[in-house]
Amino acid sequence: MSSSLPIGPGSNITAPTPQNTPLQQAPLSAGLSRPTVPDITEDKEEEDEEEADGNPLHNAMLGMVQGKLADLVGRSSGYIEQLPVEVKRSVEALKGVQIKQNELQNKYKRECLELEKKYLELSKPLYQRRIAIIKGDAAPTEEEIEAGEKQSAKDDEDYIPLPKEAPAPCAIPEFWLTALQNHIGLQDLITERDTGALKHLTDIRLSYLDNLSQLDTKPGFKITFVFSPNEYFENETLEKTYYYQAEVGYFGDFAYDRAVGTEIKWKEDKDLTKEFEIKKQRNKNTNRTRVVRKARPTESFFNFFSPPTPPSEDAIANGDIDEEELEELEEKVEMDYQIGEDLKEKIIPRAIDYFTGKALEYDLMEEDDDEFEDLEDDEEDDHFEDDDSDSDADLPTTKRRGGKGRGAAAGAVNPEECKQQ
Amino acid sequence: MSSSLPIGPGSNITAPTPQNTPLQQAPLSAGLSRPTVPDITEDKEEEDEEEADGNPLHNAMLGMVQGKLADLVGRSSGYIEQLPVEVKRSVEALKGVQIKQNELQNKYKRECLELEKKYLELSKPLYQRRIAIIKGDAAPTEEEIEAGEKQSAKDDEDYIPLPKEAPAPCAIPEFWLTALQNHIGLQDLITERDTGALKHLTDIRLSYLDNLSQLDTKPGFKITFVFSPNEYFENETLEKTYYYQAEVGYFGDFAYDRAVGTEIKWKEDKDLTKEFEIKKQRNKNTNRTRVVRKARPTESFFNFFSPPTPPSEDAIANGDIDEEELEELEEKVEMDYQIGEDLKEKIIPRAIDYFTGKALEYDLMEEDDDEFEDLEDDEEDDHFEDDDSDSDADLPTTKRRGGKGRGAAAGAVNPEECKQQ
Repeated sequence: MSSSLPIGPGSNITAPTPQNTPLQQAPLSAGLSRPTVPDITEDKEEEDEEEADGNPLHNAMLGMVQGKLADLVGRSSGYIEQLPVEVKRSVEALKGVQIKQNELQNKYKRECLELEKKYLELSKPLYQRRIAIIKGDAAPTEEEIEAGEKQSAKDDEDYIPLPKEAPAPCAIPEFWLTALQNHIGLQDLITERDTGALKHLTDIRLSYLDNLSQLDTKPGFKITFVFSPNEYFENETLEKTYYYQAEVGYFGDFAYDRAVGTEIKWKEDKDLTKEFEIKKQRNKNTNRTRVVRKARPTESFFNFFSPPTPPSEDAIANGDIDEEELEELEEKVEMDYQIGEDLKEKIIPRAIDYFTGKALEYDLMEEDDDEFEDLEDDEEDDHFEDDDSDSDADLPTTKRRGGKGRGAAAGAVNPEECKQQ
Repeated sequence: MSSSLPIGPGSNITAPTPQNTPLQQAPLSAGLSRPTVPDITEDKEEEDEEEADGNPLHNAMLGMVQGKLADLVGRSSGYIEQLPVEVKRSVEALKGVQIKQNELQNKYKRECLELEKKYLELSKPLYQRRIAIIKGDAAPTEEEIEAGEKQSAKDDEDYIPLPKEAPAPCAIPEFWLTALQNHIGLQDLITERDTGALKHLTDIRLSYLDNLSQLDTKPGFKITFVFSPNEYFENETLEKTYYYQAEVGYFGDFAYDRAVGTEIKWKEDKDLTKEFEIKKQRNKNTNRTRVVRKARPTESFFNFFSPPTPPSEDAIANGDIDEEELEELEEKVEMDYQIGEDLKEKIIPRAIDYFTGKALEYDLMEEDDDEFEDLEDDEEDDHFEDDDSDSDADLPTTKRRGGKGRGAAAGAVNPEECKQQ
């Protein structure tokens, strides 16, 4: 038991570990447990709930776990079998009652989603206000500044109040880029090259898929990235949609089904997810050389919009995918879900705290010492993968290049910029 | 990032780790994130939310984390400071807007609790039905048995249907004891001696504290253990009440405030939380010996009703408690909250699956390999603590004595028992 408890120096301040992600949405905490990563099967819906099924992967793992079970648990495995038939009948009846409870639970989770939606609507005026201030479309009010400074003084006893002056509209440069770079997971995905495009990111929005009343359809949510016109791509918005499975999982949590991203219409030679390799080739016959430019998938935040596809059930059953490959793919799928989850639950609701870095402190407190060790272990494995397949684009997990030079970026802001407005 | 993701062989089946406990209640999944363990302070309520405060422990940890932050994050720490004053004003205004969002979030969490309560009410008829079947007060219906057997066949392809016969009422012996013994955490707490008393456990019920509409009072929940008359104690019910802090934590989750248990009125010589040591003493003057019986706190499930008390803020500030002691206490407090959480979210809603052991399989799948390693590490530290203070009663974390001999218990059921009714 103790082994399952996150014990660490920071564990009693807020949610003990990143797994225990506090639930929160827009800007309200969510009425949902973290959706879990489902069986790696494509578009598969369980008939009742996630039970032992025809999925060989699932069953293999269940078998493994049952092995552990036998080791760990003293309860005689023959206990139920030895019960008199009359008692067994009562046991089966209780299983029947449980099915009704599970149905009620499914309804409950849908209603939780409805509540999330309701509060997303209630918070929209606040989000609109936020974006107006970020863009410099509206002047902050004195009340807003006063409330903010009161909080700043609470957070930092050395906080020096700003000179009191009539507030004027003043955009916050690179607000969303900075916020994303202050998220532990995303800062690993954002390359130097990406920052050029992400400077044009003007808002990140959450919405829900509009099918909650139908119990047989897949619920989910959509993250919309809004961009100002830029030299990188034609799209005005890039979307990432996460679908949950229609039925909640064993312990009543939504399980992820799949994620879908917008196809990015890159302008010529601007695809940030590709790297060009210049190769000299020699013609064997003529002995002349020529220069060939070869596109190769490369690390980029924008790979987020081409999420990894879980392998099909058939592919697993036929053994088309080896174990290592499967594990790697699972890891990528989980990471993709984790990022979507964090955007929905943390970054969108608390963007200002990611911009200032305050949220990052809480994120780091959620990690216990074990995980910091893991991080160092990982670094040893940090090698360049030269696999050419697009779906396999390397997501660096430990390199910390994002966020560098924010001081310099700040220096680039013209202090007179806003006064001149 | 990868370090914060639970990657394990079972991780893609259901909630990846025990930290990510799926939220679920009675029998519906909960609209709450897992409440977190608060600062170790007694009855302390944060004015706004959990921020850097006067708590030296909290601040020390914050400092430590900020140290890590500086190592990990490339963002120049002077970024915000270098912004022009007009931009800073917009930043402060956004902090002001965020405070309104946090208020909305607090309301949202209260409404989630209301939704939990609503579904607890909706599920009460099913719980009443369950207890009637367990006690043998009512005969299971053929529909219930049929639905249960359908599920059994789905779970186990080798399931052999029971002979069809008109169902009669038939109690399930030691239902709740067996269910508790099939929970990873509780089986560690239940000693052989405890089983005698826990055989009299006839129901475990969940209720909510009735103050959700007042935003300034502490919400929470109560677990009620119902016992039949027994030779161990006078109480008909034993209760454990968990209070949340009035304000939700940083990421919108409820934080635990404290837990309170019923005082058990033990019958003479029946206190299961005490062990009696027989000591021979020799009188130095007369050289005569006498036998002394000395009570000593001992491991018992019933210590659950004397939860550990977090040390007072003053005690920490004055250094009255050394670091090791504090850490140990924190661990115990977290374990106590974890057990309460699991009773509420898992055992009460899915008691039949704990009785059969099915839920345990899912619980084990939630643990990743790392945690199994931890378990073995812990065993080396498994020493007998001879501290006499009551609050320090040793909670064994690795010994697995509970649940043993369930086969034998089943053997003790008279197969004719129900037919004779």
